[in-house]
Amino acid sequence: MEVSVDCVMFGFHTNELKVLLLKWSENDWSLPKGKIFRWEPIADAASRVLTETTGIQDVFLQQFHTFGATQSEKDYTQDQTGSRVADKHSERVEYRYFQESIVSIGYYGLVDFEKVVPNLAQSYQWYEIPAIPDLLFDHIDMIELALVALRKDLRYLPIANLLPQKFTLREMQKLYETILNRKFDRRNFHKLLMSYDFLIKLPEKKIGTANKSPHLYQIDFEKYETALQDGISY
Amino acid sequence: MEVSVDCVMFGFHTNELKVLLLKWSENDWSLPKGKIFRWEPIADAASRVLTETTGIQDVFLQQFHTFGATQSEKDYTQDQTGSRVADKHSERVEYRYFQESIVSIGYYGLVDFEKVVPNLAQSYQWYEIPAIPDLLFDHIDMIELALVALRKDLRYLPIANLLPQKFTLREMQKLYETILNRKFDRRNFHKLLMSYDFLIKLPEKKIGTANKSPHLYQIDFEKYETALQDGISY
Repeated sequence: MEVSVDCVMFGFHTNELKVLLLKWSENDWSLPKGKIFRWEPIADAASRVLTETTGIQDVFLQQFHTFGATQSEKDYTQDQTGSRVADKHSERVEYRYFQESIVSIGYYGLVDFEKVVPNLAQSYQWYEIPAIPDLLFDHIDMIELALVALRKDLRYLPIANLLPQKFTLREMQKLYETILNRKFDRRNFHKLLMSYDFLIKLPEKKIGTANKSPHLYQIDFEKYETALQDGISY
Repeated sequence: MEVSVDCVMFGFHTNELKVLLLKWSENDWSLPKGKIFRWEPIADAASRVLTETTGIQDVFLQQFHTFGATQSEKDYTQDQTGSRVADKHSERVEYRYFQESIVSIGYYGLVDFEKVVPNLAQSYQWYEIPAIPDLLFDHIDMIELALVALRKDLRYLPIANLLPQKFTLREMQKLYETILNRKFDRRNFHKLLMSYDFLIKLPEKKIGTANKSPHLYQIDFEKYETALQDGISY
């Protein structure tokens, strides 16, 4: 049986949560995806596949769910009957994926949108989740489940990785609000954030905002790690 | 590559969380385990493997993590060098597992200890977690991770499945305390439980306890399902 790894890379930009998609042809998009080698530890395979397909290195990756033959079988059947899926892939190396039963292990990753410059032979695009186009394989289900997992794991995740190096408290609040799809009271949320010791207030302020210039912060990653072990409430 | 399913079955009895282990020989214990068939949906495989190895049917099963070649490779190497692992398995059908790279998808299940009567050709035993003996494969790591996942998922899990049909609030509190390995204040916890509408107070009381006979409760499973969708705080 083929075993592959699929990576849902989350980025955060202009107050939107986005997902990195690779373009195969005009209307063909997918997540970064690749085969696991024999004896290769799964987590190693996830990093390797991500680097090979996108050039992205050293990012936080979290396994969230393993997907089975149901979806692959659907693709397989469509392939056999010569449907659009078959047409789309018939000239690609990936074609053989449809010939074999596949198990796909899903990982999600959190990346600083501004720091990550994918290094790709093929085109890619960061998509806002509601705007994601039709995807190959069962990748739309994977993204949905990755988002559910991200919300469930939120207390223990280094989601500050999604922020630029210097950020405002308002931006951090927006990040939580975007992931959880709900609003928080500004005062209470900032008070909560400041009750942790991992935020370093910088002398600089953010300029060019509509309101009075808010203070910029950065993360003390050592203290952040410690706080995450107990979970960060929100 | 071989893909298998491994099931960590949690039961709750005499205020202890226990795990169902199968006995292969004098000192050889493992979790219920089996191969996934080609094209078989993973969740179906988990139910089938559990039923085939233990006779247990219709229980809540939750996928929690997929384990890779690292552990198998370790076993494989030990096997090749003729160590104890190899000796233990050399006469078993499972021997071939060591010849192939394996991916194991871990599921955990929650069962009412009193209702489940495993139907097994081989012997089995419910073990308290601290007393679990040496296990085959990487099953001890699986149990540890299953417990971490159980704790993390607790708000959304039908853990009342672990209780007998009729139970006291004290028993339900003990269940949470056992899983989370911490104590709750009795009054606050009972008040919290009663703030949900899924507990039905029965006219009967539990007899034979040291203190005055406490009321028995049972679950309204329809309301319980609804409460679990939003998560049950504790």
